[in-house]
Amino acid sequence: MDSEAVRRPRAREIGLVLGELPPGPRNAITDVPDVRVGHVTLVGGEGRLVPGRGPIRTGVTVILPHGDNLFRQKVPGALFVLNGFGKPTGVAQLDELGVIETPIALTSTLSVPRVADGLLEHAIQTNPDIGITTSTVNPLVFECSDAWLNDMQGRHARAEHALEAIRQASSGAVEEGNVGAGTGMLLFGFKGGIGTASRRLPSELGGYTVGALVLGNFGRREQLTIAGVPVGRLLRDWRPTGSGEERGSVIVVLATDAPLLDRALRRLARRGALGLARTGSIAGHGSGDFVLAFSNAIRIPHEPPEPVLQLPYLVESGRLIDLLFQAAVEATEEAVVNALFRAGTIVGRDGHTAHALPLEETLGLLRRAGRL
Amino acid sequence: MDSEAVRRPRAREIGLVLGELPPGPRNAITDVPDVRVGHVTLVGGEGRLVPGRGPIRTGVTVILPHGDNLFRQKVPGALFVLNGFGKPTGVAQLDELGVIETPIALTSTLSVPRVADGLLEHAIQTNPDIGITTSTVNPLVFECSDAWLNDMQGRHARAEHALEAIRQASSGAVEEGNVGAGTGMLLFGFKGGIGTASRRLPSELGGYTVGALVLGNFGRREQLTIAGVPVGRLLRDWRPTGSGEERGSVIVVLATDAPLLDRALRRLARRGALGLARTGSIAGHGSGDFVLAFSNAIRIPHEPPEPVLQLPYLVESGRLIDLLFQAAVEATEEAVVNALFRAGTIVGRDGHTAHALPLEETLGLLRRAGRL
Amino acid sequence: MDSEAVRRPRAREIGLVLGELPPGPRNAITDVPDVRVGHVTLVGGEGRLVPGRGPIRTGVTVILPHGDNLFRQKVPGALFVLNGFGKPTGVAQLDELGVIETPIALTSTLSVPRVADGLLEHAIQTNPDIGITTSTVNPLVFECSDAWLNDMQGRHARAEHALEAIRQASSGAVEEGNVGAGTGMLLFGFKGGIGTASRRLPSELGGYTVGALVLGNFGRREQLTIAGVPVGRLLRDWRPTGSGEERGSVIVVLATDAPLLDRALRRLARRGALGLARTGSIAGHGSGDFVLAFSNAIRIPHEPPEPVLQLPYLVESGRLIDLLFQAAVEATEEAVVNALFRAGTIVGRDGHTAHALPLEETLGLLRRAGRL
Amino acid sequence: MDSEAVRRPRAREIGLVLGELPPGPRNAITDVPDVRVGHVTLVGGEGRLVPGRGPIRTGVTVILPHGDNLFRQKVPGALFVLNGFGKPTGVAQLDELGVIETPIALTSTLSVPRVADGLLEHAIQTNPDIGITTSTVNPLVFECSDAWLNDMQGRHARAEHALEAIRQASSGAVEEGNVGAGTGMLLFGFKGGIGTASRRLPSELGGYTVGALVLGNFGRREQLTIAGVPVGRLLRDWRPTGSGEERGSVIVVLATDAPLLDRALRRLARRGALGLARTGSIAGHGSGDFVLAFSNAIRIPHEPPEPVLQLPYLVESGRLIDLLFQAAVEATEEAVVNALFRAGTIVGRDGHTAHALPLEETLGLLRRAGRL
Repeated sequence: MDSEAVRRPRAREIGLVLGELPPGPRNAITDVPDVRVGHVTLVGGEGRLVPGRGPIRTGVTVILPHGDNLFRQKVPGALFVLNGFGKPTGVAQLDELGVIETPIALTSTLSVPRVADGLLEHAIQTNPDIGITTSTVNPLVFECSDAWLNDMQGRHARAEHALEAIRQASSGAVEEGNVGAGTGMLLFGFKGGIGTASRRLPSELGGYTVGALVLGNFGRREQLTIAGVPVGRLLRDWRPTGSGEERGSVIVVLATDAPLLDRALRRLARRGALGLARTGSIAGHGSGDFVLAFSNAIRIPHEPPEPVLQLPYLVESGRLIDLLFQAAVEATEEAVVNALFRAGTIVGRDGHTAHALPLEETLGLLRRAGRL
Repeated sequence: MDSEAVRRPRAREIGLVLGELPPGPRNAITDVPDVRVGHVTLVGGEGRLVPGRGPIRTGVTVILPHGDNLFRQKVPGALFVLNGFGKPTGVAQLDELGVIETPIALTSTLSVPRVADGLLEHAIQTNPDIGITTSTVNPLVFECSDAWLNDMQGRHARAEHALEAIRQASSGAVEEGNVGAGTGMLLFGFKGGIGTASRRLPSELGGYTVGALVLGNFGRREQLTIAGVPVGRLLRDWRPTGSGEERGSVIVVLATDAPLLDRALRRLARRGALGLARTGSIAGHGSGDFVLAFSNAIRIPHEPPEPVLQLPYLVESGRLIDLLFQAAVEATEEAVVNALFRAGTIVGRDGHTAHALPLEETLGLLRRAGRL
Repeated sequence: MDSEAVRRPRAREIGLVLGELPPGPRNAITDVPDVRVGHVTLVGGEGRLVPGRGPIRTGVTVILPHGDNLFRQKVPGALFVLNGFGKPTGVAQLDELGVIETPIALTSTLSVPRVADGLLEHAIQTNPDIGITTSTVNPLVFECSDAWLNDMQGRHARAEHALEAIRQASSGAVEEGNVGAGTGMLLFGFKGGIGTASRRLPSELGGYTVGALVLGNFGRREQLTIAGVPVGRLLRDWRPTGSGEERGSVIVVLATDAPLLDRALRRLARRGALGLARTGSIAGHGSGDFVLAFSNAIRIPHEPPEPVLQLPYLVESGRLIDLLFQAAVEATEEAVVNALFRAGTIVGRDGHTAHALPLEETLGLLRRAGRL
Repeated sequence: MDSEAVRRPRAREIGLVLGELPPGPRNAITDVPDVRVGHVTLVGGEGRLVPGRGPIRTGVTVILPHGDNLFRQKVPGALFVLNGFGKPTGVAQLDELGVIETPIALTSTLSVPRVADGLLEHAIQTNPDIGITTSTVNPLVFECSDAWLNDMQGRHARAEHALEAIRQASSGAVEEGNVGAGTGMLLFGFKGGIGTASRRLPSELGGYTVGALVLGNFGRREQLTIAGVPVGRLLRDWRPTGSGEERGSVIVVLATDAPLLDRALRRLARRGALGLARTGSIAGHGSGDFVLAFSNAIRIPHEPPEPVLQLPYLVESGRLIDLLFQAAVEATEEAVVNALFRAGTIVGRDGHTAHALPLEETLGLLRRAGRL
């Protein structure tokens, strides 16, 4: 599918440094210990769109806050909605209880129900008492529209793909670009998709990590800004991609091992929006822009042995909390840029060609602006 | 399924008057002109629970704000979350854009994805451009748990049942009790389900109607209050029903023909919670309590002919807005009581028997307190 | 001022029991250990209103979550806004940080700024580094309108009265009725004001206390419901009081020693609204209805010795959280009734006479309904 | 006070163009017809801080959505809280009712109550029925801390200064830099204060204007980004200013003549945060970052002649709404930069010198990056 034979580099691999904080060893969301990511990529067919039949350019990506039973060992989480023109599921209970109890799934807009059904299936398989002798479970699915490349009405990402993505999830390096939910996405009028990055705090400030994973599918080309350079404006006429209208979206997932509860995590999530702005986002009307943050340093048991636990609580004060916020801004910015760098050109329905960001031209522009 | 042969009456049929405002002609949500309600009731099997196989005591209920194409002619809507321990879908976009663009579906908790998939199917059938040349669509599904009576893991309410409920939706009288999504519900330790009621304002104050439909599945028995009388406490030991723990929920849908936009509708929705409180609700931790309000006096077109429309706007001021609020409180209260009155005894999984509110005993208690 | 010579009783003193949980020893917010309440009552002048000159029927009430330096030892807190037609100050920071760092003051609407200035003065006196070498401070003031009895434009409750109320605050019995901020308030078309109540959980469930203090100034007479009995409707024509329009408000302050953080406290606060509904509230448009909840079982230091503290965290699960919610509902309901029972008749500006709830008639009505 | 004799230029005056949309004729918030701005600047004393006595470097700025009686002719408004570590007043009612009914005042943190008292005074003077025969009024005051330069405990900005600022408010050019509330502010480790800018949509898209006024007092120096160039990092060691800790804040006021109601205005306000991000903001923990948006194309009467009005309603759809969002981003960004450009060096308490952004150096950096 990817018309470029050679592996496209990540931003740092060509010497582009965004922000001030150092990344973790993988510069990925999986730098937060125990976080896992899995992708199922669905590609099939070519040519004219036959609604319900193809072509297929879509997928599912899952993020697991830890490797144990999430329903039994929930983690604190919170959502910031920058622009709610989107169709996630699971957000009401997340707001009320401040915990995540399933993997977080990303997929194509119209596939949200089928993927949610897969999360239910997984939760029931691992917790056979759900809906019988214990409470029900709250699946968490977010989406972007891959309508320009994919037969979206076909809802080809289905329950079994969610289960498969969970099965494959690993805590190692994270694939980026045209994988999983990112397969059919456009980003600033170029091919978009999955990107990730991380930041690590100094050890004297806890050595905490903040990792970001984005499903990048937003923006018009002329808005694209890389390292402050108006790359999109300068490449305005280069091989047009997409409808020109913004009907995109972006999902940012922030993970940390700093012991934050839901209120502080919502604050962290808000900073993800500032990272998007650094890449040129104006949060267009049609773009469903969501930032989800969780901490896996704290676990809230489904059936606590005692009603009152002793939990670590990071007091928001001083330099530490500001560095966590800065880390969220920087990791989000770099994850978006990585999605652009890593996603190669693909052809989807009706011959629509989503062109990758041209790296040579981009590097030239960055160099001229003194940013490389 | 219903062990009582005779039709159980509604509250007003036995002379019980709740609140001060008069109801509309049907005392139902369909007193708001053009609102439609449809039910699909799913009952099958008996005896021991075999997860995924039955017995089945569940269903789907849909409310259509009007009879036209909802995606093309959206209506203003807003949600109040009294207790967000619930799994609705569609709420983020509702909050952002303040409009409803599909039927509102109610069902069993674990069936939300399948029913949402049915709403997508319906939207695509009636708008074949969705996800191809126009934007995607935001299905709105709410749920309560019918775990005590129903094989919930089986997710027997599926996409086709949502489509069927929409097909059957009518603007006439509304079935109550053990129908549609209400089939497997418990309410204050009695059999619960669907209830409805309405209130009409004086013609000199616009003659507006506020209608309520509830999916009632909340409360412990000793909390039940009818017309201020602690009926539940007095019937505490009468034929126990349910697990004793509150794992219920309640969905209230408020409809009006007063020209209110999303902000004012959210205010109206908050009053639904006060109506629940009049029946004894404490909004227990495990109860997902949601109030959705919409107005069908205003339509927001999907593709407006001009960017700026002239819309009617009810200024919140004086006696009129207070009567609308009062109508929401009273209609909600009476809809809950109607659900209790109309739902007959049924037997579900594992021989669990959900006993109907005993009407003779209840009337006696109300009479003794001077409320009949 | 009070035309009745004899002390009016509280609800329980005449045998009226509301709800199911037992109260604490004082049946007051001060049953939560270390909570303090102080009142300054301002009464002066008679006859015609001369704006800015009198008559004066107003005051200030303060609630201190504990007796130490609140700025240095903050407590978790959260607000639920049932109806935001009100003019509190301090709510944005409370929402963001989830802590309270000054006494909570209640007063007359137009006096909010002057009383807030008093809280600033107090904070500066006790923390001379504020705004010089440490951060600024967030005063928390809530209000109701005493316009029908008081020269509100005169803003007679001033900074010095806030300081005096703090000085007098004590952890003992709480005065109710026409005291402090309650001096000029109307409640369901009778004289209203300050009321308080509490509930205590069984010792095997932690023995926690939830206390409520209300500044009651809301409702039209025909809405008043006591113990489920429509007392207001039955006394509809008894000595009219007030303008007939609802321009009231109610402030509920909930205190607990259960270790809850802001998110759980917001859930608790929402239950205060259900307690108001039990007394007949429809949260009228013009009524600013706010419920503030705090826990003094947890202290968040201004300058933490370590960035990460170990805090007690009550997992919301099982019977315990439901009893806390029930306690909030019941204590709020009873506090409103206590405000009505304890507030005697007074005469304010322009000869306006605010009649006390007639106790004999009320007891008769409750008896007839079998509630006494 | 200002040590530079010559007038410092605005960004556009030296050829710096931010964003893509054209500004209005004044490139100021007053390009929105009928919007007025007034400043009262308070400067006095030198040398050592004597708390309560000086030195004084503070003031009041007011924005009037129109020139008529705001209490009688309210305008739609909404707030976005990017970081709620701030002490505004009036936000609860704004959220509930979606209207602004007083001038919007900006001042020093601890002066909020006194300035709010001034807004009350003004409202009462122009509406003598307030709190007597009509409802009360909701003053809207926002703040930033000028603690590093000003004797903040002295609360020198008082009621009379609010009244004076309203009296002086004009719809012409807007003073920037060290004026009004901006007098004692720091911005990215340089002297900050008031800045303004505007954007105008093409006439075929309604020709609407979005104007921004900022009270800029946020950021650490190394974060400052101008036109994408990391100016702050490059000037890291140039004449240090401020404590190095972020205890700032920023208030953004967005005005438009597009007919938007509160929900859409909240969406517009959120885009202000993206404009801040373009200048380098990470919304530091201690920074109270608020964006208020209003439209003066719609007026909501205090006493409507009829309960239902016909209002213009801009349907959020297509290119128009995206351009309004883009305008909000760009105007906010440029207003911040204008605040930096226009504010000259001043000396405050304890000899603290707040250095202005060095323009020569800055222009050199921008030129080298190809942005001039």
